[in-house]
Amino acid sequence: MMERINELHSQRNISELKKYLNDINPADIAQLLENVFDERERVFLFRLLTKENAADTFVEFDGDTQENLIIAFSDTELKEVLDEIYIDDAADIIEEMPATIVKRILKNTDPETREAINTILKYPEDSAGSIMTPEFVDLKRDMTVEDAFKRIRRTGLDKETIYTCYVMDASRHLIGVTTVKELLLSDSDDVIEDLMETNVISINTLDDQETATQTLSKYDFLALPVVDMENRLVGIITVDDAIDVIQEENTEDIQKMAAITPTDTPYLKTSVIDLWKKRIPWLMMLMISATLTSQILTTFETRLMTVAVLTAFIPMLMGTSGNSGGQSSAMIIRALSLDEVGFKDVFKVIWKEFRVGVISGLSLAVVCFAKLILFDRIILGNDDITFMVSLVICFTILVETICAKIIGSALPIIAKKMGLDPAVLANPFITTLSDVVSLLVYIGFAVLILHL
Amino acid sequence: MMERINELHSQRNISELKKYLNDINPADIAQLLENVFDERERVFLFRLLTKENAADTFVEFDGDTQENLIIAFSDTELKEVLDEIYIDDAADIIEEMPATIVKRILKNTDPETREAINTILKYPEDSAGSIMTPEFVDLKRDMTVEDAFKRIRRTGLDKETIYTCYVMDASRHLIGVTTVKELLLSDSDDVIEDLMETNVISINTLDDQETATQTLSKYDFLALPVVDMENRLVGIITVDDAIDVIQEENTEDIQKMAAITPTDTPYLKTSVIDLWKKRIPWLMMLMISATLTSQILTTFETRLMTVAVLTAFIPMLMGTSGNSGGQSSAMIIRALSLDEVGFKDVFKVIWKEFRVGVISGLSLAVVCFAKLILFDRIILGNDDITFMVSLVICFTILVETICAKIIGSALPIIAKKMGLDPAVLANPFITTLSDVVSLLVYIGFAVLILHL
Repeated sequence: MMERINELHSQRNISELKKYLNDINPADIAQLLENVFDERERVFLFRLLTKENAADTFVEFDGDTQENLIIAFSDTELKEVLDEIYIDDAADIIEEMPATIVKRILKNTDPETREAINTILKYPEDSAGSIMTPEFVDLKRDMTVEDAFKRIRRTGLDKETIYTCYVMDASRHLIGVTTVKELLLSDSDDVIEDLMETNVISINTLDDQETATQTLSKYDFLALPVVDMENRLVGIITVDDAIDVIQEENTEDIQKMAAITPTDTPYLKTSVIDLWKKRIPWLMMLMISATLTSQILTTFETRLMTVAVLTAFIPMLMGTSGNSGGQSSAMIIRALSLDEVGFKDVFKVIWKEFRVGVISGLSLAVVCFAKLILFDRIILGNDDITFMVSLVICFTILVETICAKIIGSALPIIAKKMGLDPAVLANPFITTLSDVVSLLVYIGFAVLILHL
Repeated sequence: MMERINELHSQRNISELKKYLNDINPADIAQLLENVFDERERVFLFRLLTKENAADTFVEFDGDTQENLIIAFSDTELKEVLDEIYIDDAADIIEEMPATIVKRILKNTDPETREAINTILKYPEDSAGSIMTPEFVDLKRDMTVEDAFKRIRRTGLDKETIYTCYVMDASRHLIGVTTVKELLLSDSDDVIEDLMETNVISINTLDDQETATQTLSKYDFLALPVVDMENRLVGIITVDDAIDVIQEENTEDIQKMAAITPTDTPYLKTSVIDLWKKRIPWLMMLMISATLTSQILTTFETRLMTVAVLTAFIPMLMGTSGNSGGQSSAMIIRALSLDEVGFKDVFKVIWKEFRVGVISGLSLAVVCFAKLILFDRIILGNDDITFMVSLVICFTILVETICAKIIGSALPIIAKKMGLDPAVLANPFITTLSDVVSLLVYIGFAVLILHL
């Protein structure tokens, strides 16, 4: 694509270039203009786009590109783009711009749109209200199918989706929902009231955006209606925005589980300093909490020294308990995210993980014992690894695996119940707790079996 | 809901019960029937559903419930349900059923459907072909908008989506695409050819399902056309199925990163033995590979013994490098999944992580040094922690953090390039490698600075 654009550009064949450019999907134009062309060329090429394509392309750019384009725009150009983009996208853009740009944007939108944007911006971050758009098709119960189609034809161009239509009463309460499919398959004089679905599934403006996407995906909706406290319809969340939220929430969960402060900036666009800022607090905290293990080891140093070989197995033991606990916490955190598990299941989960822990711990202990005796002692001839030392190591594996599984599964559920983020809170606590538990169990068995 | 159903049931008010039940959304009926009622009641209540609701509810059940219902069904009932469900859903169901049930299902579907199901089943798992449905609206280029609406009205009821319509030539090549919105906003005598989008974005049957969902989400499509090698349109992937695939792939990635063989069975429905099977191979492998650290420690045991306090810091050092590497690998694995990073970026990524590693390592080392000297040595009065010992520990933190960041970011990219799964392969290798590197660095600095 790029070659063809450069070719037409150098030939100054503007009309052909315009045609070629407007034939490309806006998502692709945006990628191309952002990654391949410099700012001057970008503005030039952008101006060749039709009004609609320009708006669709504009919303696909990242914040910096948008900011630079707005600075290059005349007020008329800015107004043209703003008139075409959806209100939820406008709100997203405004959230990322510096104050001077925001002022210019709001100056160039009509009062009604300005008010709608401000309403969305007022909802808390990550709430359903903050990601909805007020541009939906609304119908009245006494309309006929023909009336409905007339209304859709008249107002549909500016709606983010026309396929789901919402029926409201005089005070804007949501009383029914129907689809264009339903309308198309009905007779033109059928009345909306008779064919609308009255058992409407909706979500509240203040509900979490994750609840919104879960609901939308559970019912396979193309759009989910958002109502205020009085059940008045104020907006809809469309499926394409829901997908973006799902991916964003998944990225956040993965980052949190890896002990990173979540960010939605793509990796390659995040600066080194920003990456450091998102990671260092957690590394620091985990390092400091890990010194607890050093404290324990220092305390028991002289005793451990009497059977020096024991220290050689500490990293392996702590790794094993960390992995066991990590498996459980990852599964539970994911199940909590997908709403498959709730606080009511906490005992069921612990009992399940206890049993998984017992058979996993036994399997690991048996294999480790065989390895220690057959490989290390007999084949490698390491006489320090006695039968009793092997017993201490393998008993520790069994007990620490069970403990790690229980800690790893219970902590995320408890964190969520306490209103904390399971993914963020679980990680440092699970690591530190399972490390400390493993060490204490190890030292305990050593004292008990080897009489240190 | 449950109380009302039980009430109507005990009153034997079947007509009211039927009405009540059919008013509930199928996704909710399925949940209710599956979790609250026993098998006999479930079959009874299921039989009260309208044909369409029955089919929509049936596809929401899990495999066991579906199997039990099919066994309870008469052939006529089975045929009724099968006639209503979409072909991709039928293929999904068949994949999970035992052979006898599959036989009964195929016996009760008409030959055309049977062939369509078989075609889908033949595509490799996780390919675009395996999740598509052949039920789409197809138009011809010379139809008018009025013709198109007639066709949609006639055939639309059985299509998974009617909102995106595909234009094919006589040999079923995909030549254009249009939407019901476009059709509604056009005049009834406009010709499809003039209003269709000819720059069609499609995907191949053998492409990965993840590529399909990425494409669909990039372009905000409601459905993505799937073509065969000859560019003949064979099916579409709808947005609701794409969301399920996205969630499934995300769950898999999280599980793989936590060293679990992926499974798409919900947590509470997975048996203890199955959980064990998915986890134990990885725990075993990680345990065995971790014994490499024991080997190293045993080798240097006598040397390390001369400054015994050094061993107390091994768990903290290995934890820190594990966390540093884990942060990098999680970010890179996610960026690879979202297609934000590719093999071409490998040096850019390594250079970035190197710099993040340097400033993270420095920050950690400085804080750790202060903590060792001020807290452990001066406040706690631990005289074993000398200036030199602290230097060894803090140099190790700096170097191991840099190494872990590089290993954690480079390995997933290289794994993907080699056609391996970055999430699966990265984890055990990163852990083992960064553990070994940290230990060797630690011992190296100890020899160098403390002349062990």
